[in-house]
Amino acid sequence: MAIGLTTPKNLLAIDGIRLGVAAAGIRYPDRNDLTLIEIAEGARCAAVFTKNAFCAAPVVVCREHLAKAAPRFLVINSGNANAGLGKDGLLASRDCCAATAELGGCLSEQVLPFSTGVIGENFPTQTLIDGLPAAQSNLDANNWLAAAEAIMTTDTIAKGISEQVSIDGHVITITGIAKGSGMIRPDMATMLAYIATDANVNQDVLDECLHQAVDDSFNRITVDGDTSTNDACVLIATAKAGNDCISDIHSAQAKDFFAALARVSQHLSESIIRDAEGVTRLMSIVVEQGETAAECDAVAFTVAHSPLVKTALFAGDPNWGRILAAVGRAGVLELDVDKIQIYLDDVCIVQNGGRAATYTEKAGQAIMQQASLTVTIKLGRGDVTTRVQTSDLSYDYVKINAEYRS
Amino acid sequence: MAIGLTTPKNLLAIDGIRLGVAAAGIRYPDRNDLTLIEIAEGARCAAVFTKNAFCAAPVVVCREHLAKAAPRFLVINSGNANAGLGKDGLLASRDCCAATAELGGCLSEQVLPFSTGVIGENFPTQTLIDGLPAAQSNLDANNWLAAAEAIMTTDTIAKGISEQVSIDGHVITITGIAKGSGMIRPDMATMLAYIATDANVNQDVLDECLHQAVDDSFNRITVDGDTSTNDACVLIATAKAGNDCISDIHSAQAKDFFAALARVSQHLSESIIRDAEGVTRLMSIVVEQGETAAECDAVAFTVAHSPLVKTALFAGDPNWGRILAAVGRAGVLELDVDKIQIYLDDVCIVQNGGRAATYTEKAGQAIMQQASLTVTIKLGRGDVTTRVQTSDLSYDYVKINAEYRS
Repeated sequence: MAIGLTTPKNLLAIDGIRLGVAAAGIRYPDRNDLTLIEIAEGARCAAVFTKNAFCAAPVVVCREHLAKAAPRFLVINSGNANAGLGKDGLLASRDCCAATAELGGCLSEQVLPFSTGVIGENFPTQTLIDGLPAAQSNLDANNWLAAAEAIMTTDTIAKGISEQVSIDGHVITITGIAKGSGMIRPDMATMLAYIATDANVNQDVLDECLHQAVDDSFNRITVDGDTSTNDACVLIATAKAGNDCISDIHSAQAKDFFAALARVSQHLSESIIRDAEGVTRLMSIVVEQGETAAECDAVAFTVAHSPLVKTALFAGDPNWGRILAAVGRAGVLELDVDKIQIYLDDVCIVQNGGRAATYTEKAGQAIMQQASLTVTIKLGRGDVTTRVQTSDLSYDYVKINAEYRS
Repeated sequence: MAIGLTTPKNLLAIDGIRLGVAAAGIRYPDRNDLTLIEIAEGARCAAVFTKNAFCAAPVVVCREHLAKAAPRFLVINSGNANAGLGKDGLLASRDCCAATAELGGCLSEQVLPFSTGVIGENFPTQTLIDGLPAAQSNLDANNWLAAAEAIMTTDTIAKGISEQVSIDGHVITITGIAKGSGMIRPDMATMLAYIATDANVNQDVLDECLHQAVDDSFNRITVDGDTSTNDACVLIATAKAGNDCISDIHSAQAKDFFAALARVSQHLSESIIRDAEGVTRLMSIVVEQGETAAECDAVAFTVAHSPLVKTALFAGDPNWGRILAAVGRAGVLELDVDKIQIYLDDVCIVQNGGRAATYTEKAGQAIMQQASLTVTIKLGRGDVTTRVQTSDLSYDYVKINAEYRS
């Protein structure tokens, strides 16, 4: 069960965006699995995608279409990833775009397709196309929660948030939804996230804000180290709010906009980790005093991916020797272990290359048995800090992933 | 339970080596946990150790002592790793060597210490020292199996093998034992392995043979990607067999010796993976047609460490999309996914960037439900091949590692 998450309430409509859902029957019985997002003319769109070399067909098609035209529709299915299918997958994705375009009265390249679900199973193109009219007739500005639910796979709870900020006297609204629970080690983006705003922002600022927000949020979480083939994060700005176009990334307006966007992306990425497959406990890993962000990240992700650290976290066991062993194998050159300090929350566990003199098992245990905790690793080499969030490795993680296809 | 392993029978004595075990009570009740290995004068010794920056105190002391003198005793305890204890750990390790030296009538630097078990718990130096006389009085050339059992931690079965080879008319014997089951991603050596031979081999040839044998065996297995702080592999040559000293690595004698050594190290490393924590199924990952060994290894270890591949393996589910996703995120530059072919044993699952036309779920399932299988990944870039062995991720892996300290 997700930790500390409730179904999002009060997701605010974004002028210029309507959403429609339908139960197309792609994989799951009796639930919505098809989502249409309609975008008003004049909107700008930024997007980031997985760096996995085996990227899914919809990712390939999205990139092509984004290079050609401003999108008018997003068509999103859950249950089948349309990945690992070669030319058949590309064909399926293009057919879905063409059908959506025909229904919506736009060009095929104005449709962006997204898929999430099992990799490598034949894609039910006609089933999706047959579901489109129902999704279209469901289009409504207030359907953000329904869409957040329809894009879920192994997620146990919908994920979304709205933020507002005043810019030059105009109230700007940002609403975002995301899905993701397993195969989470985003590399430029999470599984699927859709964020829209009514702000008027030019393309360069929109692109830069999205990249920075994603780097600070979705790219800093990991469940299992497995980067998906379908990761995508889209940011749409409809320019309906009436503000003067934000065109300078260094302006106060851009900073205010970015701060609100960052709150949305951080909430969404944290929601994903709180709903990680089989999660019972969360761990933030903060690596301080590094020479470079790369070495801080190497240590943080090595700790975050260690099955031994993750099972100790599941057990609520302050088996900190496993954290120390992971730090030691992270590949940091000329690491002076005598300078390293490691903390569980505010309890120092490692100092001078070994167990801290003040450490007691009781103090460690009290922290490890919390629902969430922070491991801070001070490398004693410089002044760079990075942060990663992860979940534990539980029986249910194994169960979910051993049974996912059956 | 270990897959396809039985307790080793007929471990052959090595002239010049005696082994003694005792129940010192370091951690486990009612079992032997202390091992002494006595080495005759005139023997040569090669060793490789963990690359983990947080290497354990005994590893530090071993390196110091090996630089100073030829070893006469190895003293090995299970139950406590003597790692992560800073100066206290070093002191404990030196005290154990001094006590062994006094008992054995040699110099302290002629003793090599080894520890395996929980990291970061205070080391019971006096308990170990109190057990030494019992281990000494147990010294016997035929105690290899008893030693293989005494060094176990979460292992479920003892691991060992003997090989013989005739060199210049002299029968050369090699006997090796090893322990290891979790925290297995050896990086220069496995958890603990001790191999002895009566061959007469000079130091250079001994070093080179050990490094090569370890690279081809222990360095090619992974259970959980976690490199231990205590990994060590020792090769002792007592020179009692009467052969002329092997001093040329390119000689027929060296090749024959190396081949027999390689059989021993491969048997031991395969035994470790067959006894991996919670193992129910084994997977060999062969990466062919790479440009470099490094990129083949990157792909092989990424697949081997993927929790999603490992849980699919546990389920016996040919969810090959997870293999494909792991290949795609392995970081190989300019990977042309259309050239990649992936096989489960002899069944082609991926071709031309997607599911092979000939693939059927039934054929994939038949292979995935075997106790062991081979995934072959052809990169279509060159002619280099590497190979890695791994185990699945089961409920019992989580259970063993969530409960290990309790």
